[in-house]
Amino acid sequence: MPSPASPLKVAVLGFGTVGSSVARILVDRQPQGLVLTHIYNRNIARKKKDWVPSTVCWTEDIETILSSDADVIVELMGGLDPVAGWVERALASGKSVVTANKKLIATQGIALEKLARSKGAHLLYGAAVAGGIPVIPGLQQGLAGDQVLRIEGILNGTCNFILSKMEQGAEYADVLKEAQELGYAEADPTEDVDGFDARAKLVILSRLALRADLDPSEIPCRSIRAVSAIDFAYAKELDCTIRQISRAEIRGEDLASGDVLASVGPMLVPKASPLAWSHGTENTVLVGGKYGGDVVFSGHGAGGHPTAVAVVSDLISMAHGSRAVDLPSRKTALGGEFLLRHSIRFVVDDRPGIIAEIAQALAVEGINIHAIFQKPGFETSNLPFVVTVEPCTSSCLRRALDRIETMSCLLEKPFALQILEPEG
Amino acid sequence: MPSPASPLKVAVLGFGTVGSSVARILVDRQPQGLVLTHIYNRNIARKKKDWVPSTVCWTEDIETILSSDADVIVELMGGLDPVAGWVERALASGKSVVTANKKLIATQGIALEKLARSKGAHLLYGAAVAGGIPVIPGLQQGLAGDQVLRIEGILNGTCNFILSKMEQGAEYADVLKEAQELGYAEADPTEDVDGFDARAKLVILSRLALRADLDPSEIPCRSIRAVSAIDFAYAKELDCTIRQISRAEIRGEDLASGDVLASVGPMLVPKASPLAWSHGTENTVLVGGKYGGDVVFSGHGAGGHPTAVAVVSDLISMAHGSRAVDLPSRKTALGGEFLLRHSIRFVVDDRPGIIAEIAQALAVEGINIHAIFQKPGFETSNLPFVVTVEPCTSSCLRRALDRIETMSCLLEKPFALQILEPEG
Repeated sequence: MPSPASPLKVAVLGFGTVGSSVARILVDRQPQGLVLTHIYNRNIARKKKDWVPSTVCWTEDIETILSSDADVIVELMGGLDPVAGWVERALASGKSVVTANKKLIATQGIALEKLARSKGAHLLYGAAVAGGIPVIPGLQQGLAGDQVLRIEGILNGTCNFILSKMEQGAEYADVLKEAQELGYAEADPTEDVDGFDARAKLVILSRLALRADLDPSEIPCRSIRAVSAIDFAYAKELDCTIRQISRAEIRGEDLASGDVLASVGPMLVPKASPLAWSHGTENTVLVGGKYGGDVVFSGHGAGGHPTAVAVVSDLISMAHGSRAVDLPSRKTALGGEFLLRHSIRFVVDDRPGIIAEIAQALAVEGINIHAIFQKPGFETSNLPFVVTVEPCTSSCLRRALDRIETMSCLLEKPFALQILEPEG
Repeated sequence: MPSPASPLKVAVLGFGTVGSSVARILVDRQPQGLVLTHIYNRNIARKKKDWVPSTVCWTEDIETILSSDADVIVELMGGLDPVAGWVERALASGKSVVTANKKLIATQGIALEKLARSKGAHLLYGAAVAGGIPVIPGLQQGLAGDQVLRIEGILNGTCNFILSKMEQGAEYADVLKEAQELGYAEADPTEDVDGFDARAKLVILSRLALRADLDPSEIPCRSIRAVSAIDFAYAKELDCTIRQISRAEIRGEDLASGDVLASVGPMLVPKASPLAWSHGTENTVLVGGKYGGDVVFSGHGAGGHPTAVAVVSDLISMAHGSRAVDLPSRKTALGGEFLLRHSIRFVVDDRPGIIAEIAQALAVEGINIHAIFQKPGFETSNLPFVVTVEPCTSSCLRRALDRIETMSCLLEKPFALQILEPEG
């Protein structure tokens, strides 16, 4: 039980959407054992709110926070510079840290946790992945007894918003614009749509679930920029939809020596999969365990309030003396590529012999065609059709497509989508 | 970090499906800080397995366990007598307890937790609800920062197996028989099909999520025994399926004074709801928070391995010095009944004026008819049809049905199903 006599003093760094929601919950709900004492932000005159108690110290000077008597720093600034240094100094001085910073935890989490332990401080980051969905505490607490063999997730709300809107017939550029207007996507959407945001989250989940410490830069990312409305029409023919899927998997069931595979990018997802059910900015994470089978978590992955819930939950855990279960991980290099069925969309100026030529290029790489789909209603001079192929690696398919791309009848680069199999 | 020098000594009470799976995981995976030292069961000669290390003490005498140097008792016997007394004695002597016993936790959990705290011991019960799905750690850790307003769950795998099989056209009696043959249902299925098992779990979740300590006997349970294949046919017309739903909700958003409503029983569930997606023995829990919105957990709720994962996860938490977050709850009486749309199935020997008479009886209670459905292909002398009505309480509808039941044309008692609304 937290002691009401000496509650943990909480300093919030960053009073944006999440930070103000954290402050709001602390002020409104007054969780036992926690008291908001400091708020750091640039330009605080513009930020001050009348619902924040007058006892709270507002400051624009980080040194005021780092030298204060705050027990816990809640870091909601994001990014690595200068935040990583501040977090390190806070932990080194024995302050605990709660953060939603996925980039920081993905790249420096292990070192920072070690530092925290050596100083008797704590580092919690339940908000760093899938905001309001308790997948990190779920992995640390409820599933620690299992041997997790794979994780598959929808970890980026922006991509899910875009793709679930495109599912209804819209084109990428229009939906991206709408997402930007709604504040779901940045002016430069690279981090989200090209998969880098999801990749950082996948690295964190892989560490907790597979106990594999992966180098983010090693994980292949494919962008969702090339997905078009016609791909959804063909996905429907395959009883699938398209989602940005982040996945990591151990091959061989042996945590100590099994190969780890990982990737991020748009995939064809069977409609029967729980990963097809997320709409809007929702996140979904599927954890496949050796003993417990598949467990699915879903909910609002991002946004001020859901992320703030994860932050406050971490604070409450700390106030109650709960300790993060320290799950040892090992530095792991990727062990190869997924072997997957693919669907490939071609747009051609139709003439006889195209299929034969494509089939021949695929056959050279040992890739078998499974089926060919061609929806009616298109001009033969600008004809999209889709070829599905039997399981192969992406790089093997890449070599075949490099050859196919030299065909003069092609009006666009062929676009390949991996197909998610129901069971890994 | 757990100390390898002095690992927690674990005694398992009950070497059935779950107990042997817990032992297996402890022996195979050797989680840091934990060592299996004792196994208690009746008739151990019949139970002994060669994969259990020879250092483990097998006993048929509970006193051997209670007087041993075991640090943690894993209680997997179930029921209240004699187990409740054993758990109490273990905690009183400073041993910690991990249990999957929902009945024990629902009825005596608060007193036992108090006892544990007073002795510096711990009581964890992550396996008591929805076995392999980390909903209890999720509520204690990841969602503690939210203010949960409602929970809706599929908490009984037996009912879900039966109802999801009936969805494909089978009749209740046949599926129950199959479930019994597969070991999913007891010879006397009362606890499961009449809702008492789910009710104990709902009491535990309400305590953690709504901070409301409910008396199980106050929560109304409706049986799934009266559900028939024809109900699924009409459910389909309404774009619904039928599931056993356990739900509790706070009305008024005020944890301290809001009314709590709760019930267990078969409901019409819209196909678009995550609660319609569970099949077989799967469990699903939806937690609706004021700040974080809806979070959904799903997976294998029961079975030896999934439940064992939850038990071992609790043991690992203990070994790592993690403390269950102590969420204070208050004794709460139910504050009334849900106001819900209903669908009512009638089977009649058709004659003119039946609808008028039913409508009149409903009108007397102020209940408005919304729609009438009658599928073709039935004899007029044995005609099922369905009436849906606007929101009313079950007891109000009960009064109307009591009157309707006196009609001589009725061949069966009318069967009413509540309809789950998408948002509480």
